[in-house]
Amino acid sequence: MPEPTTEASATESASARKHRAILAAAEEMFLRGGYLGTNMDELAALSQVSKQTVYKHFGSKEALFVELVTTMTDAAGDRVHNEVPDPAEAGDMPAYLRDYAERQLDVVMTPSLLQLRRLVIGEVGRFPELARALYESGPKRALTSLAAVFARLVERGMLSIDDPDVAASQFNWLVMAAPLNEAMLLGDEAVPDAGARRRHVTEAVRTFLAAYGPKD
Amino acid sequence: MPEPTTEASATESASARKHRAILAAAEEMFLRGGYLGTNMDELAALSQVSKQTVYKHFGSKEALFVELVTTMTDAAGDRVHNEVPDPAEAGDMPAYLRDYAERQLDVVMTPSLLQLRRLVIGEVGRFPELARALYESGPKRALTSLAAVFARLVERGMLSIDDPDVAASQFNWLVMAAPLNEAMLLGDEAVPDAGARRRHVTEAVRTFLAAYGPKD
Repeated sequence: MPEPTTEASATESASARKHRAILAAAEEMFLRGGYLGTNMDELAALSQVSKQTVYKHFGSKEALFVELVTTMTDAAGDRVHNEVPDPAEAGDMPAYLRDYAERQLDVVMTPSLLQLRRLVIGEVGRFPELARALYESGPKRALTSLAAVFARLVERGMLSIDDPDVAASQFNWLVMAAPLNEAMLLGDEAVPDAGARRRHVTEAVRTFLAAYGPKD
Repeated sequence: MPEPTTEASATESASARKHRAILAAAEEMFLRGGYLGTNMDELAALSQVSKQTVYKHFGSKEALFVELVTTMTDAAGDRVHNEVPDPAEAGDMPAYLRDYAERQLDVVMTPSLLQLRRLVIGEVGRFPELARALYESGPKRALTSLAAVFARLVERGMLSIDDPDVAASQFNWLVMAAPLNEAMLLGDEAVPDAGARRRHVTEAVRTFLAAYGPKD
């Protein structure tokens, strides 16, 4: 029965296209106007679908907002946590930590993700579960994975750490806190350029290794 | 001419009372409902003044919001930056840094200030100058004052720091970043209790002094 299959695929693909168009319009409108400032009629118009179609796909304005946040956050997390082999020896530690830090900064300092974070923080009162989702897929995921790496490197004698969770938190925030918090309050113009980012990461890694480098 | 003076004082005091009542109502309503979610009729009613009086005192909803943010942020800054004498000798450094860090955490982790910060971050797009004001009176003021203290302590041989601005930023964020960013996303329930705060500060100071303690 080739006919029905083909028809079903064509329908599915048109539906998937609409789904993507609605999410793209949602990203543009929510990030610009906030949750309350986003009008579902305008969102449907920007998606080039009917308002009915928007609701058929996402159920409600709130559900669409939740879907947008989780999609964007998960995709960003995947970009940071791609598989990188552990460093081969203690001498590779500074370069390994700098690479990780620069990769994480590159992802997190993306303007659309910064604006998503501002928006979600501003809506914590209305949508606590949304901010929690961003926390779990964002900082929490980074901290858990980093603590596991540090625990392995302690076993191999390449780091000297009593509590890998504490060390992971300190490393994460030595790298992320200043640029992230400045960008939260000062906007995208405050995002450091590649050179400033590299210097910042070098200082963060130096301080971290002064505290947690192998004791010889 | 005692009569007019007395009348003027009475008028001024009634006016000051109204000013305070409007700001108190603004704090309650903006922090709960956000900027767009705050209705000026309801705000006037909560202040027990007419809407005309609100506009006479503050000019506009936007000006009232700006006034609220700067008043709250400056007051918080004053509470952190009260005069504390520099430590007398190198052995006092850990306690000195822990005291500073705990005082700063106590102020910044106040629920109303956390909610103000969330609100301002959520409105960066609409009110960039407001977030900038919070940044200047908040993190920026803390960093500048801390860098000056560190520079003095380097001269006295009690710290070993090449760039006091970098060291101030790292100390500030080793202390503030984890609790502040968790509270931004996870809400006030994520604010660590006194014991957790003390442990967190002890770890931050230990890492900082491993990197910047006096080299002997």
